[in-house]
Amino acid sequence: MEKILKLIEKDLKKLEHAIDSLDSTDVKIIKKMVNHIIKSGGKRIRPILVILTSKLCGFKGQKHIKYAAVIEFIHTATLLHDDVVDNAEVRRGSSTVNSLWGNEASVLVGDFLYSKSFELMSKDGNSKIIEAVSRATTILSEGEILELLKTSDPHTTEDEYFEIINKKTAILFSVACEIGAILARTDSKRKQLLKEYGKNLGIAFQLVDDLLDYTSYDDKFGKQIGTDLREGKVTLPLIHTLKYADEKEKEFIKEKLKQRSASTADFEKIKGIIEKYKGFEYTYDTTKRYIDKARGCLKGFGVSRYRDALLYLTDMMLTRKV
Amino acid sequence: MEKILKLIEKDLKKLEHAIDSLDSTDVKIIKKMVNHIIKSGGKRIRPILVILTSKLCGFKGQKHIKYAAVIEFIHTATLLHDDVVDNAEVRRGSSTVNSLWGNEASVLVGDFLYSKSFELMSKDGNSKIIEAVSRATTILSEGEILELLKTSDPHTTEDEYFEIINKKTAILFSVACEIGAILARTDSKRKQLLKEYGKNLGIAFQLVDDLLDYTSYDDKFGKQIGTDLREGKVTLPLIHTLKYADEKEKEFIKEKLKQRSASTADFEKIKGIIEKYKGFEYTYDTTKRYIDKARGCLKGFGVSRYRDALLYLTDMMLTRKV
Repeated sequence: MEKILKLIEKDLKKLEHAIDSLDSTDVKIIKKMVNHIIKSGGKRIRPILVILTSKLCGFKGQKHIKYAAVIEFIHTATLLHDDVVDNAEVRRGSSTVNSLWGNEASVLVGDFLYSKSFELMSKDGNSKIIEAVSRATTILSEGEILELLKTSDPHTTEDEYFEIINKKTAILFSVACEIGAILARTDSKRKQLLKEYGKNLGIAFQLVDDLLDYTSYDDKFGKQIGTDLREGKVTLPLIHTLKYADEKEKEFIKEKLKQRSASTADFEKIKGIIEKYKGFEYTYDTTKRYIDKARGCLKGFGVSRYRDALLYLTDMMLTRKV
Repeated sequence: MEKILKLIEKDLKKLEHAIDSLDSTDVKIIKKMVNHIIKSGGKRIRPILVILTSKLCGFKGQKHIKYAAVIEFIHTATLLHDDVVDNAEVRRGSSTVNSLWGNEASVLVGDFLYSKSFELMSKDGNSKIIEAVSRATTILSEGEILELLKTSDPHTTEDEYFEIINKKTAILFSVACEIGAILARTDSKRKQLLKEYGKNLGIAFQLVDDLLDYTSYDDKFGKQIGTDLREGKVTLPLIHTLKYADEKEKEFIKEKLKQRSASTADFEKIKGIIEKYKGFEYTYDTTKRYIDKARGCLKGFGVSRYRDALLYLTDMMLTRKV
């Protein structure tokens, strides 16, 4: 990661400055709440994608910084609304906005960031980007709703799971890369390849996230592990396991999904069942397939430091522990 | 109202058709939830403003219908999020989306409508309109947050109250009129007048809303009266009264605002105190001032059926009971 950070060091500094200045408002408490979440150590993967793809395509201007900040604002807005939906109390190792200031504030500050993002984009007036981003956020909200509908549903299929993560996660990775391509006015074929790269990277990111929710440790993960199970989120390790588990095991998992209050012992027991049926390996292998797809999308681009950085991001997905 | 409805009868039919078709999604439940609220007998004042102002300025195309629908979608998104913030159970005489499907769904379907609105606008590509609307929704979210911060605060001043209703309500009325002016490419002076008209009408609308929350009847109002008091919303009748009431009366009001659970008897008692200090008359007189301001903005426009309709809307504010 250090290599990437070094490569775009100046742009990343400008990004932090843009994040600090672009969310301007007369209402001080909004700024405070936004800062609480946006300055809490997010990995900035989505804005980094805007920066790297625009550079890869030869963009020479400065607008990519503004759009990178916008993508981070939109991502932050979804986190604020997610935390209300999930009733989350901890994110990135800190108390969530909703637990500190209430669900109401979390909803409204999310709305503020959404609107501010569109305001910033409209001032720049690139209608292709606004269209791409608004389409993405529409799909994103559909993905979140689909996920909500599937809560605690042990019959969730792999296809349904992939539709959800495609819509709720991969779309924003994809549109971040699309912005880079649009800014650099690259041809439609390369734009399509970058969109695909982003999509596959996003799917891999979510797969690893869902894996780590079982296999990481609280202090590393920034939130309590086992959260998905307790929130009734049926993710790939469990979907795979439910296909092969025996009746007794299935019943136990179904019951805990329904109750949404698995104890540590319950969680460990379910983790054991997943291990027995190789649910984690299966998820890891699936992730690798998406990583390969993402890497494949970059073949059409000539060798460059920016391509290397985008390739390096794919490796990072497989090694990340947090 | 019938006269206005007759004047733009065809456009209103097209509007309903647009509302039905433009919120398309593969996720059926979203459509169901959106319909539940959007088809529940809203007055369509904001889209009517888009239609009337565009016609007043001589717009001959069809795009005003699409933008009218978009403004209603955005308004609906704010209602969905408001109901979460207020924990409301009844709106327009029906159960709210959050009480039927949960706060989570209400948040996410609101997000869907916001994003869909920007997607629809970006497809049309009028960057002036997108800029105006996104600025408006940013201000709107600031207004909602300010209102939240002032919950149960008996020291809320008139200035603070007007800042809140300007931002949370009047801005959407104003931008609806601005869209009409932008579509018809009218000059900036007339655009400014229409924005002012919308703003003043919106303030009057909210003042009456806050008045009716004390003086209407449950079956007419579509929601329980006394809701503002029970939610700790300090509105003009109360702000005026708190200026003049004696210590004992003030203490009683403060206590009930803080408790946020006034009984019917408490409510009637507070209503009596407001009457004693002419809080309702004061609010009604203030409303009339804003109505006059709104009417004044239309003087610069020649006599037309559309101007008459916009003038008629101002009268309606003063006579509306629901």
